[in-house]
Amino acid sequence: MNRDLSRLSLNQKTTNAWTLPQAIDGCRRAGIQAIGVWRESLAGTGVDDAVALLDDAGLRVSSLCRGGFLTAEDPQQRAAAIESNVAAIEEAAALGTDTLVMVVGGLPEGSRDLPGARARVADGIAELAPIAGDHGVRLALEPMHPIFTADRGVLATLGEALDLAEQFPAEQVAVVVDAFHVWWDPQLEQQIARAAGRIASFQVCDWITPFPGDALLSRGMMGDGHIDFQRLRRLVDSAGYTGDIEVEIFNGPLWETDGDAVLDLMKERYRDCVLGS
Amino acid sequence: MNRDLSRLSLNQKTTNAWTLPQAIDGCRRAGIQAIGVWRESLAGTGVDDAVALLDDAGLRVSSLCRGGFLTAEDPQQRAAAIESNVAAIEEAAALGTDTLVMVVGGLPEGSRDLPGARARVADGIAELAPIAGDHGVRLALEPMHPIFTADRGVLATLGEALDLAEQFPAEQVAVVVDAFHVWWDPQLEQQIARAAGRIASFQVCDWITPFPGDALLSRGMMGDGHIDFQRLRRLVDSAGYTGDIEVEIFNGPLWETDGDAVLDLMKERYRDCVLGS
Repeated sequence: MNRDLSRLSLNQKTTNAWTLPQAIDGCRRAGIQAIGVWRESLAGTGVDDAVALLDDAGLRVSSLCRGGFLTAEDPQQRAAAIESNVAAIEEAAALGTDTLVMVVGGLPEGSRDLPGARARVADGIAELAPIAGDHGVRLALEPMHPIFTADRGVLATLGEALDLAEQFPAEQVAVVVDAFHVWWDPQLEQQIARAAGRIASFQVCDWITPFPGDALLSRGMMGDGHIDFQRLRRLVDSAGYTGDIEVEIFNGPLWETDGDAVLDLMKERYRDCVLGS
Repeated sequence: MNRDLSRLSLNQKTTNAWTLPQAIDGCRRAGIQAIGVWRESLAGTGVDDAVALLDDAGLRVSSLCRGGFLTAEDPQQRAAAIESNVAAIEEAAALGTDTLVMVVGGLPEGSRDLPGARARVADGIAELAPIAGDHGVRLALEPMHPIFTADRGVLATLGEALDLAEQFPAEQVAVVVDAFHVWWDPQLEQQIARAAGRIASFQVCDWITPFPGDALLSRGMMGDGHIDFQRLRRLVDSAGYTGDIEVEIFNGPLWETDGDAVLDLMKERYRDCVLGS
């Protein structure tokens, strides 16, 4: 039985009330060795100070969240998005992670042109991919649950993300396998197998019912919902992924819970639900 | 410009407060020629009386909603589901519609075995398909938006529904193309083209944001959301579908609106958003 926590990473969103220094301290107290950092939080701390704190704690960065939002039609908005993504690539490199999670963006206000939005994402990725590669960073395309297609991420399936990623070297563009976003997909087995060598991040949280009122805060702790995490982990294992497993949970009541208690529960559920027997 | 309403059908759920006789009267007042009937409502009126009222109004039945719920593991529950579906097939035949919409069911309570649930659906369809064919009825598999995979319908994409349907003659098993459920699918074009000869029903309602609190009541009137209905209609047209276009909207505020006003708005939006120029 593999009960060790060496691959467990705390994505900052799971302890949303904590600043980055607080989350780093929390990981140290809990014996967690990796963290998924959010840019907003990083901006509050400053990159240099964050790097010093991470080094001091011996904590590795499993990913930087997030780049993306590449669907704008307006040229100025598009240029601003590219600029922001270049900054994110530089931040990822400074933090020593090779993974920039890309939430690609939804339909522009008032637009119903989904194929057009998807085409603009592809254009943006083409522009950013070599820049990422030059920094030793991979753009990790995150297919998002179709509940977010309209307003957050027009890449809806792992297959679609791979169709795009495969147009670029694997050192430049990869994918995220997030349980919440992909668990329902009838092509899950085939597409995870196809993703071998392209999986930059594996994230876990549960699909809970009844569906919470706020779609953005609808994710549950592993074990509280309907996802078979051991099956998913075995599929990702079989595709050769040996990196960190990030727990990323957007959930209102969890965000009001004491952070140390959240980490204790997260470790327990990671062992029971993700590693298992 | 094709502005005629000859293919427009009122699915009863759009005017949820109306009984079946009230909905039939409402269609007559509004000049609507087809209706999608729900079994609960049919039970309240009685099949014979319903047939008489429909005949009297010159109204055709575009579909009967709904059969399905075939994911139970318990043998008794499974037998009850089969029995209920056979009754639904008989009701569809009595109403003169060849289309029984199948909402296949979600994960059983406490189960996380999605492949298992999908396999039981396939078994149930295999048992029911020849019975449906004998009655001149097609089981119309409805792929459901992945927000419903856990608790309502484990068939999540049109491709998956077709993989199952194609195991049977097209006279026995077909599919539903419901805009709300499939609009996000990156494989939409290919799968609708593939569905030629298998499309038993085309349903429309919009995807609105922010996502309403109750997932079951989250559908919008055409034009209020993000779906490009004309593109979707052209794809369905190109696949050779010439049947009715059902408007099926689960929406709290709409359900509190006067039914005649709902039908007026529905006709206007159908012309503007679905038929278009």
